[in-house]
Amino acid sequence: MQRKYYLLAPGPVPVPPKVLAAMSEPIIHHRAPAFVKVLEEVRGGLKFLFQTKNEVLVLASSGTGAMEGAVTNTLCKGDTSLVVRAGKFGERWAEICEAYGVKPICIDVPWGHAVDPKLIAQELEKNPSIRAVFIQASETSTGVMHPIREVAEIVKKYENTLLVVDAISGIGVFDLPVDKWGLDVVVSGSQKAFMLPPGLAFVTLSDKAMSFVEKSDIPKYYFNYKKEIKKLVKDNETNFTPAVSLIMGLRESLNMIKEDGLEKVFKRHTRLADATRAAAKALGLELYAPDSPSNAVTAIKAPAGIDGQKIVKILRDKHNITIAGGQSEAKGKIFRIAHMGYLDAYDIIMVVSALEMTLKELGVSVEMGQGVKAAAEILEKEM
Amino acid sequence: MQRKYYLLAPGPVPVPPKVLAAMSEPIIHHRAPAFVKVLEEVRGGLKFLFQTKNEVLVLASSGTGAMEGAVTNTLCKGDTSLVVRAGKFGERWAEICEAYGVKPICIDVPWGHAVDPKLIAQELEKNPSIRAVFIQASETSTGVMHPIREVAEIVKKYENTLLVVDAISGIGVFDLPVDKWGLDVVVSGSQKAFMLPPGLAFVTLSDKAMSFVEKSDIPKYYFNYKKEIKKLVKDNETNFTPAVSLIMGLRESLNMIKEDGLEKVFKRHTRLADATRAAAKALGLELYAPDSPSNAVTAIKAPAGIDGQKIVKILRDKHNITIAGGQSEAKGKIFRIAHMGYLDAYDIIMVVSALEMTLKELGVSVEMGQGVKAAAEILEKEM
Repeated sequence: MQRKYYLLAPGPVPVPPKVLAAMSEPIIHHRAPAFVKVLEEVRGGLKFLFQTKNEVLVLASSGTGAMEGAVTNTLCKGDTSLVVRAGKFGERWAEICEAYGVKPICIDVPWGHAVDPKLIAQELEKNPSIRAVFIQASETSTGVMHPIREVAEIVKKYENTLLVVDAISGIGVFDLPVDKWGLDVVVSGSQKAFMLPPGLAFVTLSDKAMSFVEKSDIPKYYFNYKKEIKKLVKDNETNFTPAVSLIMGLRESLNMIKEDGLEKVFKRHTRLADATRAAAKALGLELYAPDSPSNAVTAIKAPAGIDGQKIVKILRDKHNITIAGGQSEAKGKIFRIAHMGYLDAYDIIMVVSALEMTLKELGVSVEMGQGVKAAAEILEKEM
Repeated sequence: MQRKYYLLAPGPVPVPPKVLAAMSEPIIHHRAPAFVKVLEEVRGGLKFLFQTKNEVLVLASSGTGAMEGAVTNTLCKGDTSLVVRAGKFGERWAEICEAYGVKPICIDVPWGHAVDPKLIAQELEKNPSIRAVFIQASETSTGVMHPIREVAEIVKKYENTLLVVDAISGIGVFDLPVDKWGLDVVVSGSQKAFMLPPGLAFVTLSDKAMSFVEKSDIPKYYFNYKKEIKKLVKDNETNFTPAVSLIMGLRESLNMIKEDGLEKVFKRHTRLADATRAAAKALGLELYAPDSPSNAVTAIKAPAGIDGQKIVKILRDKHNITIAGGQSEAKGKIFRIAHMGYLDAYDIIMVVSALEMTLKELGVSVEMGQGVKAAAEILEKEM
């Protein structure tokens, strides 16, 4: 018998069987009436999930494509931007800005920490030329959640500045009410809390953002948000051929999310994250982002003298479990267990149990069972 | 019982059940050893299908994304290009060039006709500043096949000029030996002869094209071919999160194509196209592209006085069959029956039979059964 495979990486994530089944239905043409109905349902479901009255675009690309479009559709060549650089994905905002001739001013936050909103207020005060603030809702590389609500309160005061949020591992994980908080551009991706395979990206734009779109002069073609919105509203179609099978799956996963309701979905992520953190502490491990952890993924420091990549490797090769290691400067220092996708309490019990065995194998002094016990204590409260 | 649904549009196309099943397997992480093996197999399969020794990139996007990248990765701002504009997708090359500051000189070919290679030779002679010739192998909007081999012979003489081929509905449909003919950049997409859902794009670049890539100064980030190639060769990974489930399907469909062999696959498209054309003629209909028809899709003129869109609509609403109508200037004048995807002889019998009923309903004088008879005569030869 083949070994069972377990996936607890921060994307791709496990996909519910019902969604997999929907994606394996025979392909419908994207202009056939049956698909037009699907896209209509999906548009409604996305507005619900993003908590917005505006359209949410569905793009055939990874999340990075929608991040690129967030820069190229709103800004002009030579513009100045402010980038919160607190991990690999913050770096990506700066790279995209630079690639398209936008000058990023970077707030470099030590990895594992959230940005202090005061720093953003100071920079905006100092540099009235800043046209957009780029940030992550959840910095997947460090497991940090940034204080988006507070940042939005600050940026809102500047009528010539947008707040652009990479919420790829934020939307559907924790509460990010786009309209209520006044987030101008919000990007997400299918392979996270949407419980889908990678291949779809999402983006929504506020009225303020749309006024920037009108003036933007950076070249774009495939990621042209104005044309996408127009086509969606006018014809209920995407501008280019949509990823039909993934969108069939999206309808199912959005229905599952709607059935549960946002509150219950957010609570599930909280519970799985809390249990993982408690287990780590019970095993004598330190959290990498103790002050502002994201419920998308828990980053845990490798024990002193142990290469974090070894933990990932043993879990992979011996236990057939995929978690994530650290990236760039965190490589070897941390390992990351994700809470997104089709996961429930027993996936956390499973991975903590495997972690105990792995630490023991690496000669780390752990009291076996203490991690599982700590996780179970939290998980059973909601059973 | 729900009506059976039939799809004969030039993308999306029907997907083989085996491929649908592969895409509904539980998601594997893109860096898990099992997926690394899949990507390795896929790289080999794509080289086989494109008939090239070079890498074929797998991008998460529709084909248009890879077309955009073909412009932005090879050219410089202010460059001049030559675009064969013989339909909607030729227009797209010109639009992309313009969006990125490349000046297209356009050869406007009347819709329904292939370009005369002499015109390309003349333009290249006249304008030594032309850095790239953009063309379609198969212009899906008109059902025309362009003489790529002859065009390649001409462009080859110019060491400072690339030949860039949109083979989205070409690769896997008919013979396009990339290396043998010296095609510099060749783009394709999953929802055509690859027998997959939309969502993946492919591109391969010759050594000559790579020397252009080194000098290119047009901004790009998501579609960065140099970085993609580097990552693929070095780590057997894509630069950004790949569309895992579609790539699982791609492995299956490539295996199916390999099992048959290219010759047999090309013959199938020829046979289905020949049968469709014979049926049209037997029903007194005229072909839209009689001189250089593409085996990807057959474009047929609507009978005098009949709106082609009506034929499409009746097939859709009464017969639950999706074919395609005409686009832009061909709208209402033609309808298009495709030959790509998981189709065999009896799909053509089916659609021709439905076409006969539809024409009769529209008051067109047709001898019922003559279309099916003509198609069957061709199809039975290969049974």
